[in-house]
Amino acid sequence: MKAQIFSVGTEILLGNITDTNSKFIGQKLTEYGIDVYKMVTIGDNFDRLFQAMKNAYGKVDYIFVTGGLGPTEDDISKEVAIKVIGKEGQVEIDKKSKERIESYFSNNKKAVKVNLKQVKFPNGAIILDNDKGTAPGCIMGDKTKIILLPGPPREMEYMFENKLSSYLKKDAIIKSKNLRIGLLGEWDMANRIDLSSTNPTISPYFDNEGGFLRITAKAKSEKEADFLLNEKEKEVKNVFGNLFISDDGLRKEETLINLLKERNEKVSTCESITGGLIASSIIDISGASEVIEESYITYSDKIKEKILNVSRETLDKYSAVSVECANEMIEGLYKITNSSLCIGSTGYAHKGEVILAIKYKNQKVIKKFQFSADRNKARLFAKNRALDLAIIIMRGKYEDNIDI
Amino acid sequence: MKAQIFSVGTEILLGNITDTNSKFIGQKLTEYGIDVYKMVTIGDNFDRLFQAMKNAYGKVDYIFVTGGLGPTEDDISKEVAIKVIGKEGQVEIDKKSKERIESYFSNNKKAVKVNLKQVKFPNGAIILDNDKGTAPGCIMGDKTKIILLPGPPREMEYMFENKLSSYLKKDAIIKSKNLRIGLLGEWDMANRIDLSSTNPTISPYFDNEGGFLRITAKAKSEKEADFLLNEKEKEVKNVFGNLFISDDGLRKEETLINLLKERNEKVSTCESITGGLIASSIIDISGASEVIEESYITYSDKIKEKILNVSRETLDKYSAVSVECANEMIEGLYKITNSSLCIGSTGYAHKGEVILAIKYKNQKVIKKFQFSADRNKARLFAKNRALDLAIIIMRGKYEDNIDI
Repeated sequence: MKAQIFSVGTEILLGNITDTNSKFIGQKLTEYGIDVYKMVTIGDNFDRLFQAMKNAYGKVDYIFVTGGLGPTEDDISKEVAIKVIGKEGQVEIDKKSKERIESYFSNNKKAVKVNLKQVKFPNGAIILDNDKGTAPGCIMGDKTKIILLPGPPREMEYMFENKLSSYLKKDAIIKSKNLRIGLLGEWDMANRIDLSSTNPTISPYFDNEGGFLRITAKAKSEKEADFLLNEKEKEVKNVFGNLFISDDGLRKEETLINLLKERNEKVSTCESITGGLIASSIIDISGASEVIEESYITYSDKIKEKILNVSRETLDKYSAVSVECANEMIEGLYKITNSSLCIGSTGYAHKGEVILAIKYKNQKVIKKFQFSADRNKARLFAKNRALDLAIIIMRGKYEDNIDI
Repeated sequence: MKAQIFSVGTEILLGNITDTNSKFIGQKLTEYGIDVYKMVTIGDNFDRLFQAMKNAYGKVDYIFVTGGLGPTEDDISKEVAIKVIGKEGQVEIDKKSKERIESYFSNNKKAVKVNLKQVKFPNGAIILDNDKGTAPGCIMGDKTKIILLPGPPREMEYMFENKLSSYLKKDAIIKSKNLRIGLLGEWDMANRIDLSSTNPTISPYFDNEGGFLRITAKAKSEKEADFLLNEKEKEVKNVFGNLFISDDGLRKEETLINLLKERNEKVSTCESITGGLIASSIIDISGASEVIEESYITYSDKIKEKILNVSRETLDKYSAVSVECANEMIEGLYKITNSSLCIGSTGYAHKGEVILAIKYKNQKVIKKFQFSADRNKARLFAKNRALDLAIIIMRGKYEDNIDI
């Protein structure tokens, strides 16, 4: 099965917005075992879109089009598709879609009138209701299925998952799992595993929380796919050992919060280089109030003394970016908060130099990191490493010889 | 002048990565007055790329290609371009580029050998040095200029700005300015101005720091473009009055830090709903150490009492999300830090309910906001509004009747 993806809109050509729709559809189709042949972006230009769509019609199994379904004159995708399949004379208003528009714009007859264009379809089209906006999607065509989806990613993604996906012929069952790996840099993570396996495939990614591996299995039944995924996951766990953080798609903050909740324990932070980023990331998660009460942003030397009781002598002798200072910071934090888990950070962001201090009950780990990254990346990396360390230590799996 | 943009790489079709290169080039070409005709993504497939590039050759003034310049077999962009311009027999190693590769991989002869493919060019090509990686870019072709650029955005963007842009024929001088507007939501900002003007154009945008207007002028001389921009800026300032934050492309945190530095003053925060986000954003900026020393994340009621001395009575009677509590928080913060600028936040993230308290010297503003946004958006909006308020108050321009 082959597909071509069109994104329609002059604002994309002008560079005003990034086309994330094509990526989303590309990812989904890959999971479904459908090959994406080409992605094309075209402006709000009838002839140009018609030529391009006509060229693809009959050559691929699916043509996906996002955007250009709005109510105004320059929204042309549906009209172009209708001409491509040769149904220009056979268009009518869909009653159900019209009712949806009327209830959406209750009390605004003018808006209903303006939007009527959106509820006209060629006969035989399958209509995809839009639960998040006004433009319905649809499927039309014989030689090729042309699938029209709205442009706003929130509407498009919801429609794809909830209204469209059952109509797509999948060649097989495809299942994926994301395995989060802690503490390692991008190359270090990727280099430790064999990426050549074809089923399941295994792909390394990095996002703002650090590295993860996506394993994707293709099989005839869900049971078989699960079996393949589980076998591969065992292999990955074996390679990464204690650095394996989670396989459940949770954010790291959630994994940490869950550990704390289970044990009825609290976390506190004293942050210099991360400046509140660790606490803020934990507070991002709903339910954080059960595990975090107080935290300190101790950016200057003066405040490390005042709040955490770091000694002037240590600051003078070793500076604020030293194992000695990190140690006094974390001990000071423990004294004032009495939290089971205390996390502290210090460092020079512009040099990528970070020292993290983690105290969990009787265990204390102070670790230096050197990142080659700019100021803000270094702070983000520091936050991620702090969460990784805290999780690994709380699980009782920290070994000081972890090679990072 | 017309252009077509190709991005090359199977990983884009698979949805593994987002193509941001096309957007960047689209934006630049729009500024240069060059029309982007189409954007196309093609996998690492020689025939398919050749057909598509051949079709465009001679029909547009520029063909931009990003990606596929690496050293391996599946990197095909340059080879395809050479076939399109019919110079297959006329390819040689560029000496200077070879020397650059040798110094890049000093002591690794094998790497030099593998990368030799990258320094072969057809005669007559203009070579664009790559200061950020190994693959040089180049310009080739007669009927159409084919411009090959590396795939990694960091390398591509630097090369575009520093090596390529002087070779592009611009139809006019195009200059832009971003005008940051504070406190207003997306629609509120866009609805207050006339977007129909054509030169300068005016476009509303939103990013993680809130709303801004990009004004873009097209003119024959730089002086004329500046004149047009300044006139439009005056108009915008007139409409938004005190809500106008900056016109210099600075982040809001920088604008605030600059104000504090000029006055030799400090800022402290006590953050409940924002949980460290305000302090962390300030610390993001190099030079923050001059203006921020200490900050508190006071997430729980207990800690609002303990650190900020909020009274139990207030918490019981009005709750932590009340003007009364916000007031005691900010007064408590001022007492312990004595900072000229004190910023406090409280609220319910899941309800989008936020109360901000700002104290600057003798002035105190406590303001309630209701956002229709999810948990994390509400926290981000709160952070942005806090910075807006602080800047406006420090400028002595806050009026309580600001309609927000």
